[in-house]
Amino acid sequence: MIEEKGILFILSGPSGVGKGTVRKALFEQDTNLKYSISMTTRSKREGERDGVDYFFRTHDEFKEMIQQRKLLEYAEYVGNYYGTPKQYVEKMIEDGHDVFLEIEVQGAMQVKENFPQGVFIFLIPPSLEELKNRIQDRGTESEDLISSRLEEARNEIEMMDAYDYVVVNDDVMNAVSKVQSIVQGEHCKKERVIKQYKSLLEVEKE
Amino acid sequence: MIEEKGILFILSGPSGVGKGTVRKALFEQDTNLKYSISMTTRSKREGERDGVDYFFRTHDEFKEMIQQRKLLEYAEYVGNYYGTPKQYVEKMIEDGHDVFLEIEVQGAMQVKENFPQGVFIFLIPPSLEELKNRIQDRGTESEDLISSRLEEARNEIEMMDAYDYVVVNDDVMNAVSKVQSIVQGEHCKKERVIKQYKSLLEVEKE
Repeated sequence: MIEEKGILFILSGPSGVGKGTVRKALFEQDTNLKYSISMTTRSKREGERDGVDYFFRTHDEFKEMIQQRKLLEYAEYVGNYYGTPKQYVEKMIEDGHDVFLEIEVQGAMQVKENFPQGVFIFLIPPSLEELKNRIQDRGTESEDLISSRLEEARNEIEMMDAYDYVVVNDDVMNAVSKVQSIVQGEHCKKERVIKQYKSLLEVEKE
Repeated sequence: MIEEKGILFILSGPSGVGKGTVRKALFEQDTNLKYSISMTTRSKREGERDGVDYFFRTHDEFKEMIQQRKLLEYAEYVGNYYGTPKQYVEKMIEDGHDVFLEIEVQGAMQVKENFPQGVFIFLIPPSLEELKNRIQDRGTESEDLISSRLEEARNEIEMMDAYDYVVVNDDVMNAVSKVQSIVQGEHCKKERVIKQYKSLLEVEKE
């Protein structure tokens, strides 16, 4: 049996850009993506299920996962650990599912180190678009405001350099449509299709 | 004024794969793409307009275009020349339009040489899909048939190597949706977005 492998998509971006909103809207549309389930040391809340909402682990278990480098990324937040188990993601991908991870910029950089074959999408606020308009209609804003906007833009450009795609979150459904296109387009990339068929021909030769 | 540049998309693939059908269905859906108008030496037919259906030129004019390397590709077909004028495509792209060119494999390879920054999409027949199924259910086909299918697949793989994307034409609307995703995804590529914003910041520095 030759199966097409899945792809890990990572959606990240500056805090407050609307990553969670885009992710929710995306999952209301698209059922082929599997949302990556996080591992955490925080207590299970009423109604939460292990392996569905989170993988619930003790502090010791989590620390062992860190030491054994079994996490694609992790962070501590108000005394608890949160992370993405590598084996779970790899299993899903091997089984042909696309996995979707929505995460802060720091975490995305950890994933980039541990799973560089992922597809990294940077969500940016429409301020860059606004900036563009502002520069185009020069003279309508103060020098100071323009220079602070440019500084912001420079920082964002530096951050986006580590990513494969940049999506402007001007409108949630626009952003969702772009992410969906990126997912479908990535599956059509020659490298992926060739790999698939080459392995097909290899199998037959055996 | 900073304008986002357009992209040249080239749809090609083996003869008989359904390039024309996919292109027609795509243009019924999507109005942002501009279809590349060909130049030809053949006579204008009733109802055809210069600059709309074709750019109509004399043999001498066409040969001069060839000599001056002003064509992205050209071919001779039953005594007439057909080709894609470079300047026309470049002007459209400069003006921010995506240009779409549907063309035979030989022509696509000429475009690749003269315009490597284009995005090359290879349309393949679903036979590779069928091949996959056939190999998966081994024993249902004769050795000869399998080996001739594999030979075909190997040739197709060699051809697709020059392309950026591969789309299986299993169903016209599926293929159209994939091409649309490739178009939208390409516009989200980090390299393009960064370039755009870097030029924005450069302009402001002046």
